[in-house]
Amino acid sequence: MKITEGGVTAAKGFEAAGAEAGIKYQNRKDMALIYSQAPCVLAGTFTSNVVKAAPVLWDRNVVENAPFGQAVIVNAGIANACTGKEGYEYCERTAAKAAAVLGIPKESVLVASTGVIGMQLPIDRIEAGIEKLAGEKQDTSKAGTLAAEAIMTTDTHSKQAAAEVVIDGVKVTVGGMCKGSGMIHPNMCTMLAFVTTDAAISKELLTKAVKEDVTDTFNMVSVDGDTSTNDTLLVMANGMAGNSEINEVGPAYEAFREALHYVNESLAKMMAGDGEGATALIEAKVVGAATKDDARKLGKSVICSSLTKAAIYGHDANWGRILCALGYSGVSFEPEKLELYFESKAGKILIYKDGVGADYSEEEAGRILSEPEVTILVDMKAGEESATAWGCDLTYDYVKINADYRS
Amino acid sequence: MKITEGGVTAAKGFEAAGAEAGIKYQNRKDMALIYSQAPCVLAGTFTSNVVKAAPVLWDRNVVENAPFGQAVIVNAGIANACTGKEGYEYCERTAAKAAAVLGIPKESVLVASTGVIGMQLPIDRIEAGIEKLAGEKQDTSKAGTLAAEAIMTTDTHSKQAAAEVVIDGVKVTVGGMCKGSGMIHPNMCTMLAFVTTDAAISKELLTKAVKEDVTDTFNMVSVDGDTSTNDTLLVMANGMAGNSEINEVGPAYEAFREALHYVNESLAKMMAGDGEGATALIEAKVVGAATKDDARKLGKSVICSSLTKAAIYGHDANWGRILCALGYSGVSFEPEKLELYFESKAGKILIYKDGVGADYSEEEAGRILSEPEVTILVDMKAGEESATAWGCDLTYDYVKINADYRS
Repeated sequence: MKITEGGVTAAKGFEAAGAEAGIKYQNRKDMALIYSQAPCVLAGTFTSNVVKAAPVLWDRNVVENAPFGQAVIVNAGIANACTGKEGYEYCERTAAKAAAVLGIPKESVLVASTGVIGMQLPIDRIEAGIEKLAGEKQDTSKAGTLAAEAIMTTDTHSKQAAAEVVIDGVKVTVGGMCKGSGMIHPNMCTMLAFVTTDAAISKELLTKAVKEDVTDTFNMVSVDGDTSTNDTLLVMANGMAGNSEINEVGPAYEAFREALHYVNESLAKMMAGDGEGATALIEAKVVGAATKDDARKLGKSVICSSLTKAAIYGHDANWGRILCALGYSGVSFEPEKLELYFESKAGKILIYKDGVGADYSEEEAGRILSEPEVTILVDMKAGEESATAWGCDLTYDYVKINADYRS
Repeated sequence: MKITEGGVTAAKGFEAAGAEAGIKYQNRKDMALIYSQAPCVLAGTFTSNVVKAAPVLWDRNVVENAPFGQAVIVNAGIANACTGKEGYEYCERTAAKAAAVLGIPKESVLVASTGVIGMQLPIDRIEAGIEKLAGEKQDTSKAGTLAAEAIMTTDTHSKQAAAEVVIDGVKVTVGGMCKGSGMIHPNMCTMLAFVTTDAAISKELLTKAVKEDVTDTFNMVSVDGDTSTNDTLLVMANGMAGNSEINEVGPAYEAFREALHYVNESLAKMMAGDGEGATALIEAKVVGAATKDDARKLGKSVICSSLTKAAIYGHDANWGRILCALGYSGVSFEPEKLELYFESKAGKILIYKDGVGADYSEEEAGRILSEPEVTILVDMKAGEESATAWGCDLTYDYVKINADYRS
């Protein structure tokens, strides 16, 4: 596998655009288009929240029932959630407009929204935005970046990743973009993420690959424990790489999975590190767990703990809070057996063993915790399974951003 | 039922004291004693965290196996959690010292600790503190207040409540004290709480009453979602009121339950309102739910949502976050059916109905949310069950307190 530059336009035949449509923000791009020159096999995973935004309902229907997909229209600023029948009609009008402008079936257009809940979309501006986007779309890396910038809300930077693998002697590319960065607690996936690939792959195998991979990538991220109403991961495969269609598990499937995993994991980590107000990416790596499910629960419990997050912000090796978070994760274990380490570019240090704190230097621990990426390594000494979860520290700025997000 | 002044010394025959023992803090009381002139029937509930502090293990054993209890020794500053064999030995030494000084059996002494995890107790200071406490204990209201002050950590004020009922023509009193205010997410109960009563009641009925009542009181509170390693609620009944022993469900039991409920609910609400950094008590009242369990889950999900908590801090009627929190609670419901209101001393306002935001005044909503006690009222329109949960807003000060709690 080769890691490459770019995002949703990295794979062959994908075009993108980002435009200022004046949805809510002033003087910034707030609408994006992803367009494929050829019809795409689709897979998607959506929020598990009972309160689902209108675009989630629209897209789920397209992914499940439409013969193919070819374009995605995204807007930032307004989430189109809790908007009733009117909100759903705006999804349909968005798709209809894009279909007319792009010359594709309405049922092949996906829509996604992110922003404030409860407001209706200004549909006239959306429609004008679509015309702009269609006029500007390109298959360049620059166009992919414009799209990635246009979908941001409180994100501080755009998020893209891409990788190549060789299948049947031809180059297959997977690229993607996503946005965070509040209401990030994927129980499925919490965010908007779009992944494109030129791989030829059957719907069944694409669905399987996506389903398997989100469990260990997007679903292992939490910024604030709030599972959004709009969470969407869409994957589009247009087959333009020219490999023979992947329709069974084997080396070709595994190669595709590797590239997909790289892109998903990269995007997931970027989201965690750019959580609202965050100064550090926290990685909770659990090894030696009795079961895979235990490892995932333990890791997520640590990165979700407000007290742990605040301690990392303070560069304070307050490991009791981590033990505490492991203890209420719902997993049964013997606290005396596990070992806890802090690790970052500045070093690695044993913090807890045999049921008590290890004899470590607070100064050294503080230095390790002062890095922008910090790993909390937990060895449960209970088995062979492992999992990694990603989160971020809890800061003044998280409160500031969310105390007046609407105003 | 009559609401009265005082706390753990309100009921007949209970004495208390608070003293400076220099455990961790300077120039403040940090040890407390509760003592009963007569042996007590005991009931208790303890943290569900797999990582249990040494005092939790000690007390659970006393509550389950000792014939009676007669004293509690509490310290603030160090939690005696994750302290291994040495930590448990300090519980035993604490109990032994108190037993010797007070002239009661070691097995009748309960211990409780709150503070930093992972440090060993300075047992010499604990022992000196016990002598001080024993010398100063009194049955006055003032002594109860000194004890309530001594168990505080980041609490901004002490927490006490008391009530009287008449059973068999005699006055029966229930009084209590507790401390919060971080790591407050009771799954059982998250905090230290001590309730004393002069009721004569069998162990079986006292246990039943406590178990029933915590579900709707302490277990409905969350400050930060972190279930502590030390959570303890101890209830001591010394029978000195002189009523005939309550040993079956009936009017006497119900009268006792009413007073117990008042004390527990009052303490639980005080804890929520004094959550770390809080400026407001948030009450999430769910009515019209299909089941009691649904109502509880929905209420707790709302008060645990960081985004909702931050919005309340900003006096921002960002109701989408509340819908979102209801949606990921794990309860299945139709979002179009429910109604949402904000309520406080400043008024009551309909915010959401029929799947969309109601036509309310943002200014009025902001005024309602600016009060120190705010109710989020959710009518699920799905049945007859209800529950109330209590939490607090998420503020800069929460982060500040927890980013450097140890230092």
